[in-house]
Amino acid sequence: MSHWLHWIDLLGVAVFAISGTLMAYRKHMDGFGVIVLASVTAIGGGTLRDMILDLPVFWVQQPDFLYAILVAAIVTILWLRVTHKFPYQTLLVADALGIAFFNIMGLQKALDQGTGPFIAIVMGTMTGVFGGLIRDVICREIPLVLKGELYATTCIVGGMLYVACLALGVPDLPAMIAAMLATLLLRLGAIRWHWQLPVFQGSH
Amino acid sequence: MSHWLHWIDLLGVAVFAISGTLMAYRKHMDGFGVIVLASVTAIGGGTLRDMILDLPVFWVQQPDFLYAILVAAIVTILWLRVTHKFPYQTLLVADALGIAFFNIMGLQKALDQGTGPFIAIVMGTMTGVFGGLIRDVICREIPLVLKGELYATTCIVGGMLYVACLALGVPDLPAMIAAMLATLLLRLGAIRWHWQLPVFQGSH
Amino acid sequence: MSHWLHWIDLLGVAVFAISGTLMAYRKHMDGFGVIVLASVTAIGGGTLRDMILDLPVFWVQQPDFLYAILVAAIVTILWLRVTHKFPYQTLLVADALGIAFFNIMGLQKALDQGTGPFIAIVMGTMTGVFGGLIRDVICREIPLVLKGELYATTCIVGGMLYVACLALGVPDLPAMIAAMLATLLLRLGAIRWHWQLPVFQGSH
Repeated sequence: MSHWLHWIDLLGVAVFAISGTLMAYRKHMDGFGVIVLASVTAIGGGTLRDMILDLPVFWVQQPDFLYAILVAAIVTILWLRVTHKFPYQTLLVADALGIAFFNIMGLQKALDQGTGPFIAIVMGTMTGVFGGLIRDVICREIPLVLKGELYATTCIVGGMLYVACLALGVPDLPAMIAAMLATLLLRLGAIRWHWQLPVFQGSH
Repeated sequence: MSHWLHWIDLLGVAVFAISGTLMAYRKHMDGFGVIVLASVTAIGGGTLRDMILDLPVFWVQQPDFLYAILVAAIVTILWLRVTHKFPYQTLLVADALGIAFFNIMGLQKALDQGTGPFIAIVMGTMTGVFGGLIRDVICREIPLVLKGELYATTCIVGGMLYVACLALGVPDLPAMIAAMLATLLLRLGAIRWHWQLPVFQGSH
Repeated sequence: MSHWLHWIDLLGVAVFAISGTLMAYRKHMDGFGVIVLASVTAIGGGTLRDMILDLPVFWVQQPDFLYAILVAAIVTILWLRVTHKFPYQTLLVADALGIAFFNIMGLQKALDQGTGPFIAIVMGTMTGVFGGLIRDVICREIPLVLKGELYATTCIVGGMLYVACLALGVPDLPAMIAAMLATLLLRLGAIRWHWQLPVFQGSH
């Protein structure tokens, strides 16, 4: 992995760690709970992806991912203590960047392992959304990702664009950038204009 | 795996996907939530089994399992939209067939890996019931499988019969069929006559 | 692993199985639910650790761990049926011994795999606390370990002492005993004098 990719990856981990810390704050958890929830949110999806693809789990040999989580959680706690408010809008934008990048990481790791394009899209989406899903399950919330927000769908669309580009002979870097932009812009649009998937309106 | 075994396996996956879709319907989830819950229910148990036994996860190289989930979920949603009711009784019978087959898959994979009979029974039962357990945890239900229904017990009895048959020198195919029938009939009897395991009646 | 280490390990598994059985009793689960909850509590942390470190899962080739869980769960059930009370104080002390030992097992397995000291501390803590976390998630409790009790912190302190001792050239056995004592005494002190980590007191 080239140097700048690694830095964007660390940034994505840090953003998700902040989102876990905010949830822990809302749930009145202690210091250790904050770290656990921040970690699960940030590396849960990638850990499951690596275990399913039978790859070495990405943070075991690279502790800087865990350092990024620690720093993000501590800075967030201090910020909350001092200001008692949080820049949610900024966080949403950073989070959109985070899933766009996590999605690409999952796609690439899966294709490198020789899976087909369909499984690769599944792995990209799993990397992007599973951490948040586990966070919500631990906190006894019905996972946000399952309830009407245009979130996981942005990963699926980005993934489909990526494998379509590769199938059409587009080189890897432009395909990657196109897929990241698709996921990012779709997610930013969903935040701005409240795009939603239809929710089941069963009588029971 | 012979051809017809693969088809029965696909059928089991589809049946569990339907049960996950029904739960998502009850919980008012969106389209993506339906797919996630259907997938987790259908392949959660087998995924955990393969990770614990250190085998390649079964659906990574065979995307037709995920196609079966997609088709099952979409057909179920369309059916619910049109009829607003569901053939629960038929589903229960299909589900009984599903656990009977999943149980045998877990038993055989474990024994192939050289585990003892006790661990093999554990793996068979885990394959049969873990998907439903994760489904209920995500939906914030106390898992059905832990609450008085004769469900997992049918896997355990089928598994004990299977390893007993093998120990007595019965060839694999008849042993398999005997174990599947034991699990299936026990489960159908539990549905028909409401057999239950005793539940703790502690004062607290 | 030397003979007495294996026996202490079995004892730790049995103690956590008892704690899972007690939770199942409080939640009115059936016989199978008791076994599942006892097992998840007792071997959940170690299973996740082995999967993340890409090691063979420890109980797959050694069924005596599962036998220990069965015996512990059945004895606990019988005890509860006869006496209708439970020696909670004794259990807390045994549980403190259990996490002290699980912590060391996780630390050693991680260092044996060539991870750095930071990841080793994470693995020790995960082995000690993850089983209880999954138990609470299945039972729809906000995990105790995330809510103010000095529990996981005792693993972290023990782990830091262990890697510090090794870095200073202390031989393995005294380092191990020092770390176990630190975890054990800190946990016993937390039980006796209600030591707590500060909990977030956010207005929302």
